[in-house]
Formats: sequence, structure tokens, C-alpha cells
Amino acid sequence: MKTLVLLSGGMDSTVLLHKMNREQEVLGALSFDYGAKHNHRELPFAKYHADLIGVSHEVISLDFMAEKFASGLLKTGGEIPEGHYEDESMKQTVVPFRNGIMLSIAAGYAESIGAEAVTIAAHSGDHAIYPDCRESFMQFMGDAIEDGTYAGIKLLRPFIKMRKEDIAREGEQLGVDFKHTWSCYKGEETHCGKCGTCVERKEAFSIANLPDPTVYQSR
Amino acid sequence: MKTLVLLSGGMDSTVLLHKMNREQEVLGALSFDYGAKHNHRELPFAKYHADLIGVSHEVISLDFMAEKFASGLLKTGGEIPEGHYEDESMKQTVVPFRNGIMLSIAAGYAESIGAEAVTIAAHSGDHAIYPDCRESFMQFMGDAIEDGTYAGIKLLRPFIKMRKEDIAREGEQLGVDFKHTWSCYKGEETHCGKCGTCVERKEAFSIANLPDPTVYQSR
Repeated sequence: MKTLVLLSGGMDSTVLLHKMNREQEVLGALSFDYGAKHNHRELPFAKYHADLIGVSHEVISLDFMAEKFASGLLKTGGEIPEGHYEDESMKQTVVPFRNGIMLSIAAGYAESIGAEAVTIAAHSGDHAIYPDCRESFMQFMGDAIEDGTYAGIKLLRPFIKMRKEDIAREGEQLGVDFKHTWSCYKGEETHCGKCGTCVERKEAFSIANLPDPTVYQSR
Repeated sequence: MKTLVLLSGGMDSTVLLHKMNREQEVLGALSFDYGAKHNHRELPFAKYHADLIGVSHEVISLDFMAEKFASGLLKTGGEIPEGHYEDESMKQTVVPFRNGIMLSIAAGYAESIGAEAVTIAAHSGDHAIYPDCRESFMQFMGDAIEDGTYAGIKLLRPFIKMRKEDIAREGEQLGVDFKHTWSCYKGEETHCGKCGTCVERKEAFSIANLPDPTVYQSR
């Protein structure tokens, strides 16, 4: 199936890109610069992996999000909280309907380039604090995209029943170089090691019994 | 209900704005500049009506659409076809998943400003050539937006069972100044009178037995 892959430059979507490149026909990788504090860290890694497998990489800028949306994840917002994703404080990092917006744009772009599907690395560990990460949302959105496009674009989510450590293991088997991926929401020189997404990244490698190549400011 | 109104500056969404302003609490009107040939004609009318009733008017630029999407409706595309909407040639004016993208962004923005609903002027005459105008799509998208936002944002479509001439009549009753609305896809000095959206505009006034204040290049 001809597919467009949503690629952030994090662990999950990078493994997804390499997996889809083996199993399907990848027409392109699509990233977004939406004014998040860590976009400038993750986007070069997204390009790195797209270049590595020789697929086109597009970055769409969503300036309006930084300008008009309220979220601690954005450069225009407050501090990134430290701790687990499950903590109440992590709700500050919600960007309203971010995935809905990205998936909609991806669907329109996919139709423009003749793709039959959009593929996203949503997984079972994606958090209840982000309503637009959950599988129930993905099902509704997938129906909307299929019904609302001429080509009946499908929304594929091959990792939806996997945990992050399972994705790390699959990446290891695919030979993914995780050193060239980025998770930390703070977007500093190195991963902070303390924010929700750093904690989750460390745990995934640890539970999967894989070496973690990440340089953290604190372990 | 606190609502955000999608406002293009055309007949339908302008009537919608005035209707919602009577019946609900309008927190703002949202328009998009997506590189369509007629955006520069309709957006000033959108602002005119928002100013008239004293609600804030935001315009979000979707530069990526003009740059990366394929459609005859866009400045980057071919000629606007003449004739009826039902004609095969009108398919050239489809912008892939345009309404999905606009509704997603509206949902995120609505959540950011504390609205409980997004309201769109979709109506029963919206055309099968645009898959993301149909009610089946609106239902899926409404489910996705409600499930994917914290506030459970609703997608309201009060005109969904009305025809365009019914909307014209309702606008007349609300005192809407239709001279300050724009339909023509060509975006020239005056309405061309020949493209699908001009033909539909003329028919709506005619069937509703209302005077048509529009200046057309040809009748």
C-alpha cells in the first residue's frame, strides 16, 4: 500500500518509518513544526532517517499553533513539568487537538501525492491525558478521513496494540539507530532525563533490556 | 452554548454568524486564508460581519495548502471551471480534505479559547463532489472532535437539513446584508456569474424569491 508516514523524529515514528519502508511503499515522510520547544531537536533526526532510506521529507509549519493555542509544550507556554506522564502536571503539555490537526493535514497531503494511507505510530501506552492519542479517537478520525477523501485514505496504526518497549525491540531488530532520535520536551542540548517523555524513553529501553544510547543531563 | 463560528464570508456562514449571535454566545469567528483564488475577496466580508456584531475575528493562514496541495481552486492551480457544481469539471476545485483540516484547527482553537462548540454552515445542498462536505463526514468528524478534545467540543451544523434558498430566507429575516458576502471562486473584481458557486448563489436568491444584490459580470 502506498503510504505517507507521520514522522516526528522520536523513537516510535522512526521505528515506524523503517518498518513501513520494509513492508509497504512509502511515498513520503511528513513532519510538523508547530512551535514546540523541542521541534528544533527532533526535526533534524526526522530528516536524517528519511534521507537514510531515501524517501522525501516534508515539514509543514503550523505557525498559528504557537501564536494562538495555549499549551506548556509550546515555546509560547510555560515550563515543561518533570515527573511521570500520569502526573496531573503533565496536562500542561496538552496542545489542543494537535493530533487531529496533524492527521487532517496529513490526509489532505496524502491525497495530493496519490497515497492510499496515512500511517501513525500511536501505541497502547499513549496517554489518557492526551485525548487525541487514544484509540477511540483514532477510530473516529480514521472514519472521518476515509469518508472525507476521494481516495478513501486509510489511517494505519500498526503499533496500536504494542507498548513502547515492544516498539524499541522492533526498532532494534530493524537496526534503527536510536541515538539519532529525540524525545525530550524541553529541547535543550541533551535530553533532560526528568520530563515525562524522557522518563518514558528510559523505561522503554530498560524494560526491553536494550542499551540506551541517549545522553541524559541526569539519570 | 459558547461557540466558535467558522466564517468564510460567503452567504451561508454569514447567515450562520448572525443566527448564532442571536441564539448562542459567540466567542469568536474563525476564517482561513488557504491560498484560494477568492480568499482576498471573501475575507474582508467575514471581518465586516464579525465587526458588525462585535465578535473577535481571527484569520489563520494555511500557506502549506497553496504550496503543497493540488487543486484548481488554489492560486497555484489551473482555471476555475464554469457551469453547475454537479459537472464533472467541478472536481478540479476540490481541495483535498479542506474541511477536515479547517474543522480540526477550529476544534483546537475552540478549546484554547474556552468554547464548547464549533459551528459550521454545512447544508443539505453541499455537494457530493466534495466528500468532506457531506453529513456522513460531519458525523464522523464531530465524533472525532468530541472524543479528541478535553472539553468534548461539539460540532454544530444547524443548517444541515436546509437548502441554500432556505438559508437565504433565514438571512433575509435576520437582516443580513448579502451585498457584503462573496461566493465566486474566481476572485475577480465582481462575481463572474458562471462558475458553480455563482450559479448556485443566483439560484438561491431566485428560488427564495428574494432580490439578488450581487453585481455579476454576466447574468
